[in-house]
Amino acid sequence: MSQYQAPLKDMQFVLHKMLNSEQVLQQMPAFDVVDAETIDSILDEAGKFASNVLDPINAIGDEQGCKLSADGAVKTPDGFKEAYQQFVEGGWPALSGDPEYGGQGLPSTLQIAVNEMIYATNQAWGMYAGLTRGAYECLLRCGSDEQKALYLPKLGEGSWTGTMCLTEPQAGTDLGILRTKADPNGDGSYSLSGTKIFISAGEHDFTDNIIHLVLARLPDAPAGTRGISLFVVPRNLPKEDGTAGERNAVKCTALEHKMGIHGNATCVINLDGAKGWLVGEPNRGLQAMFVMMNEARLGVGLEGLGLAAGAYQKAAAYAKDRLQGRSPTGPKAEGKPADPIIHHPDVRKMLLTQKAYVEGGRMLAFWTAQLADVHHGHPEADERARALKLIEFLTPVVKAFLTDNGMICTNLAIQCLGGHGYIRESGVEQYFRDVRIKPIYEGTNGVQSMDLLGRKVLMDGGERLQMVGGVIEGFLKQHGSNPAIAAYAPALAKVLQQLGGLAQELGQRAKENPAEVGAAATDFLRVTGHALFGYLWCQAAVIAQAELDAGNDPEFHTAKLQTARFYFERLFPEAQLHLKLAQVSAESVMALEEAAF
Amino acid sequence: MSQYQAPLKDMQFVLHKMLNSEQVLQQMPAFDVVDAETIDSILDEAGKFASNVLDPINAIGDEQGCKLSADGAVKTPDGFKEAYQQFVEGGWPALSGDPEYGGQGLPSTLQIAVNEMIYATNQAWGMYAGLTRGAYECLLRCGSDEQKALYLPKLGEGSWTGTMCLTEPQAGTDLGILRTKADPNGDGSYSLSGTKIFISAGEHDFTDNIIHLVLARLPDAPAGTRGISLFVVPRNLPKEDGTAGERNAVKCTALEHKMGIHGNATCVINLDGAKGWLVGEPNRGLQAMFVMMNEARLGVGLEGLGLAAGAYQKAAAYAKDRLQGRSPTGPKAEGKPADPIIHHPDVRKMLLTQKAYVEGGRMLAFWTAQLADVHHGHPEADERARALKLIEFLTPVVKAFLTDNGMICTNLAIQCLGGHGYIRESGVEQYFRDVRIKPIYEGTNGVQSMDLLGRKVLMDGGERLQMVGGVIEGFLKQHGSNPAIAAYAPALAKVLQQLGGLAQELGQRAKENPAEVGAAATDFLRVTGHALFGYLWCQAAVIAQAELDAGNDPEFHTAKLQTARFYFERLFPEAQLHLKLAQVSAESVMALEEAAF
Repeated sequence: MSQYQAPLKDMQFVLHKMLNSEQVLQQMPAFDVVDAETIDSILDEAGKFASNVLDPINAIGDEQGCKLSADGAVKTPDGFKEAYQQFVEGGWPALSGDPEYGGQGLPSTLQIAVNEMIYATNQAWGMYAGLTRGAYECLLRCGSDEQKALYLPKLGEGSWTGTMCLTEPQAGTDLGILRTKADPNGDGSYSLSGTKIFISAGEHDFTDNIIHLVLARLPDAPAGTRGISLFVVPRNLPKEDGTAGERNAVKCTALEHKMGIHGNATCVINLDGAKGWLVGEPNRGLQAMFVMMNEARLGVGLEGLGLAAGAYQKAAAYAKDRLQGRSPTGPKAEGKPADPIIHHPDVRKMLLTQKAYVEGGRMLAFWTAQLADVHHGHPEADERARALKLIEFLTPVVKAFLTDNGMICTNLAIQCLGGHGYIRESGVEQYFRDVRIKPIYEGTNGVQSMDLLGRKVLMDGGERLQMVGGVIEGFLKQHGSNPAIAAYAPALAKVLQQLGGLAQELGQRAKENPAEVGAAATDFLRVTGHALFGYLWCQAAVIAQAELDAGNDPEFHTAKLQTARFYFERLFPEAQLHLKLAQVSAESVMALEEAAF
Repeated sequence: MSQYQAPLKDMQFVLHKMLNSEQVLQQMPAFDVVDAETIDSILDEAGKFASNVLDPINAIGDEQGCKLSADGAVKTPDGFKEAYQQFVEGGWPALSGDPEYGGQGLPSTLQIAVNEMIYATNQAWGMYAGLTRGAYECLLRCGSDEQKALYLPKLGEGSWTGTMCLTEPQAGTDLGILRTKADPNGDGSYSLSGTKIFISAGEHDFTDNIIHLVLARLPDAPAGTRGISLFVVPRNLPKEDGTAGERNAVKCTALEHKMGIHGNATCVINLDGAKGWLVGEPNRGLQAMFVMMNEARLGVGLEGLGLAAGAYQKAAAYAKDRLQGRSPTGPKAEGKPADPIIHHPDVRKMLLTQKAYVEGGRMLAFWTAQLADVHHGHPEADERARALKLIEFLTPVVKAFLTDNGMICTNLAIQCLGGHGYIRESGVEQYFRDVRIKPIYEGTNGVQSMDLLGRKVLMDGGERLQMVGGVIEGFLKQHGSNPAIAAYAPALAKVLQQLGGLAQELGQRAKENPAEVGAAATDFLRVTGHALFGYLWCQAAVIAQAELDAGNDPEFHTAKLQTARFYFERLFPEAQLHLKLAQVSAESVMALEEAAF
């Protein structure tokens, strides 16, 4: 099995050449000292941690899984706890956290790049830290000063971890029907009772405390989503001195047996009169949780990207090594009994699909992360507001498009290995099993699609779509005739125009029949994803050509141009299929009687 | 977890209404007594066996897997051996086998329908019987009279099972570089030495003997595929009385750890001077093995279909039961806290995709099986030859299109269950893991695509393609203006014409650059699959409308028409995407330097 190589050069291309991260980030007072050198040295360190610490225990985690003992304790796989200790010692847990509360105050852009490498090498392990960052962000934005002072330094330094407890057996996508109750104790605290399922990182042996953020209902809460409140429920009640004290009535009663991410403990969490404290306003818990969810959705997109990137590396290494058959254009390894399979067109096509989706996903995810930095830290309110609108539009696309592409890429990675890809020891099929949850959790990709089309496009009268369209049109106006993209720019401009037309058409159709939105949403999202990838790949091509003209790193920039060409010739045309499908009425989707399925 | 319901009504629609199986099969002297009633009663019995015996041990097989002991014996999962005994007692092993050698002499058409139900309920178990049928067919067609008399009755009654031993560590797709040696012993037998890997059903506890069909090289054999011979190598040497005698030097030395099909023993088989006998001519082993391979490829397509059908049933049952959110067109289950998710357009779209691919796959697979019966048994040589040409064309499509669709369908089945789909206990993710090997083995789907485009279309000057095109054109001429398909027939006619044009264009381009075939092949196959599905769904719609007009089973035939509409509106348009992609030159596939991957 090949060892992970941190894709530093490609990350630097995106950050320094495409996003001008140093200049953009230094506009934010908080990041005025973050320069390219700092970014590069942190990426380099993170890459070493991923390659040397996380990659070697990835298969072990899959093989061993987590073990639950009768007292509700969970033993994580060999090496996981030690890796976490190294992570904490390295100061990684709150890289982008608030310096006032134990964070390093670095940009999300950098955090996202670090996360990609973590997720590429050990998805299951990375989720423990990912959930903790989510809980940190949620408490930072919605918690009281007291809650922030109590929990954030611990979460930031990594001595405690966090979870989000939403799902119940009867309530998944539909959180409005959740039943966990929170009764006031009269002393400002609440007593929570109920059962939460699918709680990632819900129990483990890394730290002496775990901070659960739990959705529950107050006694007088209205029915539905407007009667849900958010509570912080520490597994161990903090003592006066801020250290972990006696056990709260929170217990992991079972671990789920899952298809993948075996090294992450997916828990059934039982709350039996557990002590908790309200976070934010009563009955406004879903809004508070959505602070966490939106960041989490970007994170899940990153997970899809990381897994695709990790699997692609293994597939490419195998294809260069495995000798089988002869190239159709004549022998490439004359002294050997056969040629490396990387010379077969079908194998190249599979590898290039992975490469184009991985590199495009990196551009989209890093761009979105940089917008998050602008949104949180730009001195001008207009810029912050504009960045927020863009992020709201991009978030469901990052989540769904990058995780669907993660499925495509890890599946092709297996196929590149043939029968060996189906064998556990090859280490590739684990990526495919690990990635399969990503199109589901934090809102299924169907839900993301409806969020994009229904909420982010139709409900705001197309404002966000026009804003994104404006970015792309502006780019095309400036660079459309650049020879590097002259062959692709018209196709991109056409898709952009079609997408606007489709949004209008769907708005009309939805008025006649609300089912039209659900029937067209996944197609609409896929078209949007390609419009964004098309824009980013054009940008990459323009820059790569300029670098090439300047004589910089010809191998890398030539490959970038060739991959752009492959993307536009072989992947981008899918947008036309989904444009066509989104135009089909919902009739044939809705007609069949329930009994006929 | 819902129990499997044998899809008898849909099978009967395909066999009796679409394929006129009774009339067609009775043209074959061997099947002159096979009537609709016989077919129905066998399907009914097979459905019960699948539902009652195989379905309940499917998850057990996945959970337990096979166990190898130090002496090379393999213990199969609980219940597998007993199910096999019931299978043997029921007379199922050689349903379509030659009556002269222990077979029941029934048509392949019926065998295929039975197989679908076996594969839908217990893929890993079904493969033991599947490999045995392959070995039976291979010996029947290529073995000597003595070999047939010795092995076929045992394989036919199921008291011995069979395998095919092709792959070696260094030789998978490229069998030309296999190394296993066969040295003549001077007494007509040979001594075989080498290591075979990925041997499905290579060892087990069902029977007291296993008959391996092994590819190996004679001492004077030429290099490459023209120096490969086929040998029969019994694990236990048959005694004079035909029963299993002393152990041969054939041993299972390891079991592979796989992503799925855990209940099937995938063995490393070591041959250490094992005694074997030549089957057929020296150095013509690959041709002999291809008798088995072609049947096996149809079988793998069936496996993809069966898994898709089984997963679809579970997804549909869950979607009718799971309450989550409200239908966009207003509440459907007013007294309940939420509506069943089957009322959500996106869930319906996922279910209808599965339904349309499963039912279309059934039509294609059963049609191909019926052609096999015509090829083997029709009294007129012209009919036999015509059927063979069609089968040669259809085989790679059945294998690749149905297994790729199997991936799509089982993936969507998981998605319908949301987070519960990722949990092993739901029983759906097993289908996805089990199906993942199908696009790989018996020739990867890339190899199938090149077989179709290179060998079956371009190398015969388009004769087979024209023959298939003629079948579809004939149908369209007769029924194209039927109102039931008036909306789809023009699109089908267009795709057919485009496919012919594409074949010509690719023939030209391949002359310039042989890499064009490999770069376009998978797209070409996908277009071909849709052309065939389009034809079959038109046929189904015409028949369903006629049945509806006659007042027969309105629910079933209305659903068939609605599913046809869904297929043409939502799935068939994919053909246009792949037509476009197949027209792109191989340049961007071949350009990237090896080091740049």
